[in-house]
Amino acid sequence: MKLLLKIAYDGAAFCGFQYQPGKRTVQGVLTDAFSSLYGFGVNVTGCSRTDSGVHALGFCLTLSCRDDGNIMKIPASKVAKAAATVLPGDIAVLGAAEVPDDFHPRYSALGKEYMYKIYDSEIPSPFLRGRAMYFPRRLGEEQITLMNSAAGYFLGEHDFTSFMASGSKIKDARRRVLSSSVSRGEDGLVTFSVSADGFLYNMVRIMTGTLLGVAAGRYKPSDIAEIIDAENRAAAGETAPPYGLYLKRVIYPVPTDELINNIE
Amino acid sequence: MKLLLKIAYDGAAFCGFQYQPGKRTVQGVLTDAFSSLYGFGVNVTGCSRTDSGVHALGFCLTLSCRDDGNIMKIPASKVAKAAATVLPGDIAVLGAAEVPDDFHPRYSALGKEYMYKIYDSEIPSPFLRGRAMYFPRRLGEEQITLMNSAAGYFLGEHDFTSFMASGSKIKDARRRVLSSSVSRGEDGLVTFSVSADGFLYNMVRIMTGTLLGVAAGRYKPSDIAEIIDAENRAAAGETAPPYGLYLKRVIYPVPTDELINNIE
Repeated sequence: MKLLLKIAYDGAAFCGFQYQPGKRTVQGVLTDAFSSLYGFGVNVTGCSRTDSGVHALGFCLTLSCRDDGNIMKIPASKVAKAAATVLPGDIAVLGAAEVPDDFHPRYSALGKEYMYKIYDSEIPSPFLRGRAMYFPRRLGEEQITLMNSAAGYFLGEHDFTSFMASGSKIKDARRRVLSSSVSRGEDGLVTFSVSADGFLYNMVRIMTGTLLGVAAGRYKPSDIAEIIDAENRAAAGETAPPYGLYLKRVIYPVPTDELINNIE
Repeated sequence: MKLLLKIAYDGAAFCGFQYQPGKRTVQGVLTDAFSSLYGFGVNVTGCSRTDSGVHALGFCLTLSCRDDGNIMKIPASKVAKAAATVLPGDIAVLGAAEVPDDFHPRYSALGKEYMYKIYDSEIPSPFLRGRAMYFPRRLGEEQITLMNSAAGYFLGEHDFTSFMASGSKIKDARRRVLSSSVSRGEDGLVTFSVSADGFLYNMVRIMTGTLLGVAAGRYKPSDIAEIIDAENRAAAGETAPPYGLYLKRVIYPVPTDELINNIE
């Protein structure tokens, strides 16, 4: 058996998820912390590679033994509290579930959901730096409605080459967007929420930059269809900064999805 | 004339408000930033000294010229945006108003309002570290009701020696508490809100530690009256950590209060 974990982290002080020698990464910190907690080498396998500065509210990963040892020596229901004793304050385990050995946090996923948060105000907030993109004026209801209309054009299966960082070596840029909307959240921030069966490199950040182009009047909502059709990165807007981006949820087949996403 | 400013700051990376040579303080950063913005030496006078790690949502201070120069060369309505060009991201000017030369941000104040935020959960949140005190289990409605009842005993004029850091050299510890309540805020955090005509050193943090003693069943709400009467620091609870504390608002006589507190 493996253990599937749902974790949250503040990405500000991490050089992304993936292990890099000599750098503080989420995978590096978790590998050290869990190896010390279990008393044997632990493999940490993530659902995706988040960039430096990107946050996670519901990142998923598996723990397995590197050599000998029983990963179930701590029951799934106790892992979150045990992990809190060895993890730094910018990363937390929310919960855990047992999964079979052939489960892979990335390849078993049906999709993912991201949020991108924008703080729109004349004056930047000291409490939101590194937590949301700062947009230097208030977005009106009309502009948010336009952004939401534009976001609707992302829905369905398309070739998203226009929304992929140039230089990416992905051959098939077709992805199916399952949900896509813009609204002002309960936290007062303008939030772009998007889920898809997969994401290209920088896809959500380029989508966000393009939606802000709609708010600024540079594009009409219906231009999104043409930007998609162009299959050309130059047709889309700027890449929004990493620190507004949150990996919210990984979608797995039931019953794993119910096990891991009912954890709060 | 002087300029009265309302500012917000994330206290995490500041050694408190008051200038200390060689340390990063709010007063030091503001003095340097405004002197560079105006092109002449600027005096920054605060409404209080906040400790290292304490936050501000509505700290007030005055700007005046150290030597020659006209502090009104930037109109009050433009200071916030001008300041944003020279201030670091963890401090922001929310607004400004002209006040007469005999106005003092500390001595002209009628009182202040503080908030203390508590994050009560089995697992600490990566996004609230340094922003709220972590309490390792969920507080139920019943416990919050008890804390709120206890907070009511702070109301009115009392000698608050029991709620003053030992070693303080204040002779008269009588203060009038104007409002005092505990509730779960819109942000989901348990929040103690208290306003008074003045505060002793660590007063809100010792009040909070004592209210958590009520939640834990160590004190009954009515014990607060006896703790006040004891006039002895040892009678009260622990001092809660600085990073849950927010200076929310400084209360001034009208019309200054309306000028500065209608700024958002």
